[in-house]
Amino acid sequence: MSSMEVIWSDLVRHREDFSSFHLRDAFAEDPERFARYSAEMDDCLTLDYSRNRINDKTLMLLEALIAQADVAERYQAMKSGALINNTEGRAVLHIALRGSVADDLSVDGQAVMADINAVKERLYTFAKGVRDGSIAAKDGQPFTDVVNVGIGGSDLGPHMVTAALAAYHDGPRVHFVSNVDGAHMGDTLKGLDPARTLFLVASKTFTTQETMTNARAAKAWLTAAIGEDAVADHFAALSTNKAGVEAFGINTDRMFEFWDWVGGRYSVWSAIGLPVMIAIGPEGFEDFLAGARAMDSHFETAPFRENIPMLMAALGLWYRNVWACASVAVLPYDQRLLYFADFLQQLDMESNGKTVRNDGSPVLRQTGPVIWGAAGTNGQHAFYQELHQGSDITPCEFLVAAKPSEADQHQHDLLLSNCFAQVEALAFGRTAEEAKAQLEASGKSPQEVAALTTHKVFPGNRPSSLLFYDKLTPKMLGRLIALYEQKVFVQGVVWGVNSYDQWGVELGKELANKLAPAVEKAERGEGEPAILDRLKAYRAR
Amino acid sequence: MSSMEVIWSDLVRHREDFSSFHLRDAFAEDPERFARYSAEMDDCLTLDYSRNRINDKTLMLLEALIAQADVAERYQAMKSGALINNTEGRAVLHIALRGSVADDLSVDGQAVMADINAVKERLYTFAKGVRDGSIAAKDGQPFTDVVNVGIGGSDLGPHMVTAALAAYHDGPRVHFVSNVDGAHMGDTLKGLDPARTLFLVASKTFTTQETMTNARAAKAWLTAAIGEDAVADHFAALSTNKAGVEAFGINTDRMFEFWDWVGGRYSVWSAIGLPVMIAIGPEGFEDFLAGARAMDSHFETAPFRENIPMLMAALGLWYRNVWACASVAVLPYDQRLLYFADFLQQLDMESNGKTVRNDGSPVLRQTGPVIWGAAGTNGQHAFYQELHQGSDITPCEFLVAAKPSEADQHQHDLLLSNCFAQVEALAFGRTAEEAKAQLEASGKSPQEVAALTTHKVFPGNRPSSLLFYDKLTPKMLGRLIALYEQKVFVQGVVWGVNSYDQWGVELGKELANKLAPAVEKAERGEGEPAILDRLKAYRAR
Repeated sequence: MSSMEVIWSDLVRHREDFSSFHLRDAFAEDPERFARYSAEMDDCLTLDYSRNRINDKTLMLLEALIAQADVAERYQAMKSGALINNTEGRAVLHIALRGSVADDLSVDGQAVMADINAVKERLYTFAKGVRDGSIAAKDGQPFTDVVNVGIGGSDLGPHMVTAALAAYHDGPRVHFVSNVDGAHMGDTLKGLDPARTLFLVASKTFTTQETMTNARAAKAWLTAAIGEDAVADHFAALSTNKAGVEAFGINTDRMFEFWDWVGGRYSVWSAIGLPVMIAIGPEGFEDFLAGARAMDSHFETAPFRENIPMLMAALGLWYRNVWACASVAVLPYDQRLLYFADFLQQLDMESNGKTVRNDGSPVLRQTGPVIWGAAGTNGQHAFYQELHQGSDITPCEFLVAAKPSEADQHQHDLLLSNCFAQVEALAFGRTAEEAKAQLEASGKSPQEVAALTTHKVFPGNRPSSLLFYDKLTPKMLGRLIALYEQKVFVQGVVWGVNSYDQWGVELGKELANKLAPAVEKAERGEGEPAILDRLKAYRAR
Repeated sequence: MSSMEVIWSDLVRHREDFSSFHLRDAFAEDPERFARYSAEMDDCLTLDYSRNRINDKTLMLLEALIAQADVAERYQAMKSGALINNTEGRAVLHIALRGSVADDLSVDGQAVMADINAVKERLYTFAKGVRDGSIAAKDGQPFTDVVNVGIGGSDLGPHMVTAALAAYHDGPRVHFVSNVDGAHMGDTLKGLDPARTLFLVASKTFTTQETMTNARAAKAWLTAAIGEDAVADHFAALSTNKAGVEAFGINTDRMFEFWDWVGGRYSVWSAIGLPVMIAIGPEGFEDFLAGARAMDSHFETAPFRENIPMLMAALGLWYRNVWACASVAVLPYDQRLLYFADFLQQLDMESNGKTVRNDGSPVLRQTGPVIWGAAGTNGQHAFYQELHQGSDITPCEFLVAAKPSEADQHQHDLLLSNCFAQVEALAFGRTAEEAKAQLEASGKSPQEVAALTTHKVFPGNRPSSLLFYDKLTPKMLGRLIALYEQKVFVQGVVWGVNSYDQWGVELGKELANKLAPAVEKAERGEGEPAILDRLKAYRAR
């Protein structure tokens, strides 16, 4: 048995130490539990992980597990430009986009930072121009609206970040269209003026089906309104396919490239961040990058018990592989983080939703959990019933800021009190005695008390972590995203998977291309004849 | 052992019959599998459940389980106005809102249908007035924007339905504000003109913390701009608290009530649907109700093998309790259904996320799974990697229309081909032989082929169901929502829980109220002193 398997066995055995553990007792017995199980960085971001089913031994074992997996070594390999995305033969250098690699790093003979800085300067010049009106519409007037056309990593990152930083917007309005469903582009364009609208087409290959279909629809809408020659002024491309961009009619001085070593779900730091740069300006974007850089540095240097991404990765492994928890709920108490869970779904599930190790052998245990969630307090009135009294344990990750960004202070205090109340209710619950006493105090008859007591019991002892920070600035958001990227990295290394490929996305694309002609005809196709018959019938109605 | 437990044991034993089952073989062996395992209603809605790990025996056992649970009897009890929400002592009659009960039904001496029709007439008159401008703003001009202020059931239902039916909107724009985070109301109001904006305050009790906080913020914004006397013209209430509504300044002829027998998550058919009525008009809303009524009738009369809600409930029980699947992915291939999974999260998880039976005893098995999902094709570029190649099996529910609603036909065909391709890829997968052949054909070296083959294998045999319908009209959407309501009902009856209470939401509310004063002061509070210290420090920065 390998050393890692020995530690896994120790962890499984250690779980038995928790057979009579309850967070209520743990806090009663140890008034310092918060101090013991919290970590802080930059004096503005705290991970409070005290409400987890852990003790010092748990952390010791998890630290040993991660050390055995050579996480630190793998991270150095990443930083050095090694081809750690081995199934695609690529380096993984999104951390370079925020300056977390050596200045003189080269990949394939290309100086990484020089390339990044050259493109970034062009991006910032373009973003500034759109913001100040010097890069204008065909008629010389400033753009009022920008539509980003992309999907997956070319949509989820910039969309989430743009929404999150609404308080910092001082540029034109930014919209996002991703779905191949024509309703997405159609409904978005309804409110827009072609003469005032700029389109960013975000597709590394410039062949993504959804994006190119939507880009063509946008082009048709634009040119029908203000002429064929409007494309040059009203389009830009985030891509590396020069020939494709030119064929579309976009001047290549409006093409902003990124590189093979930037995975889609790690690309918000690259040219894919252009809509963010336009919305909040290059200075705000620099702060965003600086936040991520600060998190990289924290991740690389902080000891395990103070290392926020390491701790979150470790807790995730503990619940996933020792307690068999199938999903994680991400619960930001911030309406502007409404897309945060959607973004993490891709980041986490596309990275670690795999069952084959780097070397082609099967993974020995469960990998990436389902990631889901919604902004608080909304979720409280939706699915929290199940978090509190459902049959499965779902570890929860709460996020909340001490101070609001351009929002009412009193309402923010209510937000905070709700967030703190939920972590407490999950951890401490309500006992049968408490439920009974409460029912009696409310004047219920003994019969009613007997009938209702068990319904009003909250078992408690349900684990959660709380990310608590001073304010959701661009810099803080940079920290938070990089935190989750590093968490995903650590878990991927421990499971031994390649977190940077996505072969599982391929087969569906192939089959869709095969089916498309059959669907267009609504005739018999291969593979799914019965459903195509039904299609024909429904089309005829 | 009870008869139900005997059937559960049979089902667990029956699972062993699938140890060498693969959907690839099942379809190869039976060309009629689609016909065998699909159900249709009204000649416009098909449930294709052929891509599940089932055979005739599975269905026979599941049918017996549901029969033993007395589902039909419980439904008659619901229809007759019995207090099936026993922990709150209430009838459950949302089905009456769409006319699925007897015309002369009374509850507590009140004629149910007469009450419903009286309020509905007032609602329709009001909606028509807002739409045609006869119910106008303070200055006599028509409203251009309506803001619904509500949370949970007073938000998720009308928000989802309004978004879903965008193609049918011909009234003023409708917005939804739910979160107590002041950013939600603040960001929404930024684009609006107080002189043209109508607010609907949706809270049965008129005391919901989030809703009343937001309603007060809206009132302050309105009156600061156009005067204290604007409230009467610019507000309406969806509530039963007459005194509260009056105290807020809303005239009670603008108060639209609903009843104790309408649970929040089942209330979109009631006055809570007013934003929908304003957006699409009373006629469209009648179609929406007619669709739900048609589904109720189908549910009540169709034999098991043709009964869409019964079949979906049965499959859910099979995967949840026999295969231990922890979550269900809901994947509508329709951008306008982007909130459908959020809506179902509340409907399903708040209804059945429970571990105590009606009689107060513990449930014997796992109850409500986690419900999550996103609109296709977006999800394909996010989390489908894990659905195809992840370590857990997640049963998927796909939804797609044969025809687009006010969207491009070619793009809709791409949407359809993607949806059909995904169900096929999940079911059939790609074998090692196929992966190898494909790699070889692409010119890879034997070494590369060996290294990559397992990464490119899709195991397949992953279950999914497909709801396929002619078009997403108001009537079809009514069918779909009622379908899921009845599915949740059946599962709740089988598990023996009360699907219509939500005690698990309570403790958090209590604790939030207790913590709020401490947070306001950012001082030491009870329960969470350490985090309040941190709050103080971050506030001081």
